[in-house]
Amino acid sequence: MKKNKPKYTQIIDAAVKVIAENGYHSSQVSKIAKQAGVADGTIYLYFKNKEDILVSLFQQKMGNFIQKIEEETNSQQTAVEKLLKLIEKHFEQLTADHHLAIVTQLELRQSNKELRLKINEVLKRYLTVIDQIIEEGIQDEIFRNDIDKRLVRQMIFGTLDEAVTNWVMKEQHYDLVEQAGAVHDMIVRGLTYR
Amino acid sequence: MKKNKPKYTQIIDAAVKVIAENGYHSSQVSKIAKQAGVADGTIYLYFKNKEDILVSLFQQKMGNFIQKIEEETNSQQTAVEKLLKLIEKHFEQLTADHHLAIVTQLELRQSNKELRLKINEVLKRYLTVIDQIIEEGIQDEIFRNDIDKRLVRQMIFGTLDEAVTNWVMKEQHYDLVEQAGAVHDMIVRGLTYR
Ligand SMILES: CCCCCCCCCCCCCCCCCC(=O)SCCNC(=O)CCNC(=O)[C@H](O)C(C)(C)COP(=O)(O)OP(=O)(O)OC[C@H]1O[C@@H](n2cnc3c(N)ncnc32)[C@H](O)[C@@H]1OP(=O)(O)O
Ligand SMILES: CCCCCCCCCCCCCCCCCC(=O)SCCNC(=O)CCNC(=O)[C@H](O)C(C)(C)COP(=O)(O)OP(=O)(O)OC[C@H]1O[C@@H](n2cnc3c(N)ncnc32)[C@H](O)[C@@H]1OP(=O)(O)O
Repeated sequence: MKKNKPKYTQIIDAAVKVIAENGYHSSQVSKIAKQAGVADGTIYLYFKNKEDILVSLFQQKMGNFIQKIEEETNSQQTAVEKLLKLIEKHFEQLTADHHLAIVTQLELRQSNKELRLKINEVLKRYLTVIDQIIEEGIQDEIFRNDIDKRLVRQMIFGTLDEAVTNWVMKEQHYDLVEQAGAVHDMIVRGLTYR
Repeated sequence: MKKNKPKYTQIIDAAVKVIAENGYHSSQVSKIAKQAGVADGTIYLYFKNKEDILVSLFQQKMGNFIQKIEEETNSQQTAVEKLLKLIEKHFEQLTADHHLAIVTQLELRQSNKELRLKINEVLKRYLTVIDQIIEEGIQDEIFRNDIDKRLVRQMIFGTLDEAVTNWVMKEQHYDLVEQAGAVHDMIVRGLTYR
């Protein structure tokens, strides 16, 4: 499998850096090749084109992240605790990788319809993890069952995403992870019975 | 004042349509001129370049919207009622203009730093209206005072924005305005005392 070859990851990591620093539209494949220390032609052994690099890097990073999140949340007892872990990991992961945070919050917001649909298919894997936590909270009668689950997911993801984008726009200069508790608290209060 | 000339608005409205249908990057100034029914050169009497058209259209539409929102919320008694009005108007305004919704949710998400800072300065006017409602709710001891106000604003705007983007990605095929109450309910429960 191509994806297990070290050069695949090497190109992906180079792409994250180049795209974060130059923006997607100004990141020529040759720039990514140079950063990765491979010949231009080598890139095309692994990727069809620049679009494919963008979608693949999101896929790869998301795959790793989801695996981590599932391990972490499975060790938690309740939906409320799982949601806290998810928020913490979301903020920690992006704090740990300065370039990846710029890519997820600014560069993956492409408006080209075809490309955006591919990006959103990858995002869906994460939204499904959120959906499972919501579902569990409702089953266990911790979360209210009188709100549309899609709206609940949109509130959770929308809140996290907006908090992260604000932090990225502010050059990541304050501590995001430290706010996980407060964000969790606001969300959970909106979802539970009084 | 240039902005009061009918051609100014005519060009802005043409730009919203062209950008929604073609994407910002494929919307040449000449395409916008053609749609507006003016000569290419006329555009440059009103706008410096395409970037200026994008920022100006957001400014113009946002200005109108804020005026409406302030009128509507001022006639409400409490912060809770004002927030409901704001959510309703946000959803109604974008439902009323199919093209504008595509532009706000997809095309204004530009990653180019300089352009994005200009866009966010315009957005700030709306966020300030949200901040005022939060402030009033806290003053009146309806909203809790133990959460960072910036996080509260990020939750409110993030939730609305994500709900709208989902609806735009789904080709606006369900009723967004009808969900204002449920969204308001989730948010308010997160902010008020038990
Ligand atoms: C690199 C990561 C590694 C580090 C990790 C760190 C942490 C993670 C960080 C993640 C950051 C993400 C960054 C990248 C994001 C790029 C994209 C964005 O801009 S994101 C920011 C912007 N956000 C986006 O771009 C997300 C946009 N969302 C979507 O495009 C979709 O939800 C989907 C494709 C994701 C799933 O779609 P689908 O599989 O269809 O599942 P649905 O349930 O949605 O829909 C099921 C049905 O319900 C209908 N329905 C839904 N809601 C409502 C409602 N409220 N009322 C009534 N109806 C509603 C809907 O119409 C559908 O019916 P029909 O149409 O079949 O009849
Ligand atoms: C066309 C409209 C007409 C139809 C209307 C329909 C309804 C409206 C629709 C609106 C749709 C909008 C669509 C267009 C949006 C395009 C842009 C997006 O992508 S939006 C989606 C993505 N979202 C965005 O792109 C929004 C990103 N946000 C921003 O860029 C800024 O908030 C700002 C520029 C808007 C205001 O900035 P500023 O004036 O500075 O005020 P701040 O309070 O933010 O900050 C004050 C200080 O607090 C610090 N601080 C903040 N938070 C925290 C925290 N949690 N913990 C600790 N600290 C925090 C911060 O660092 C600062 O300190 P320092 O740095 O001075 O030391």
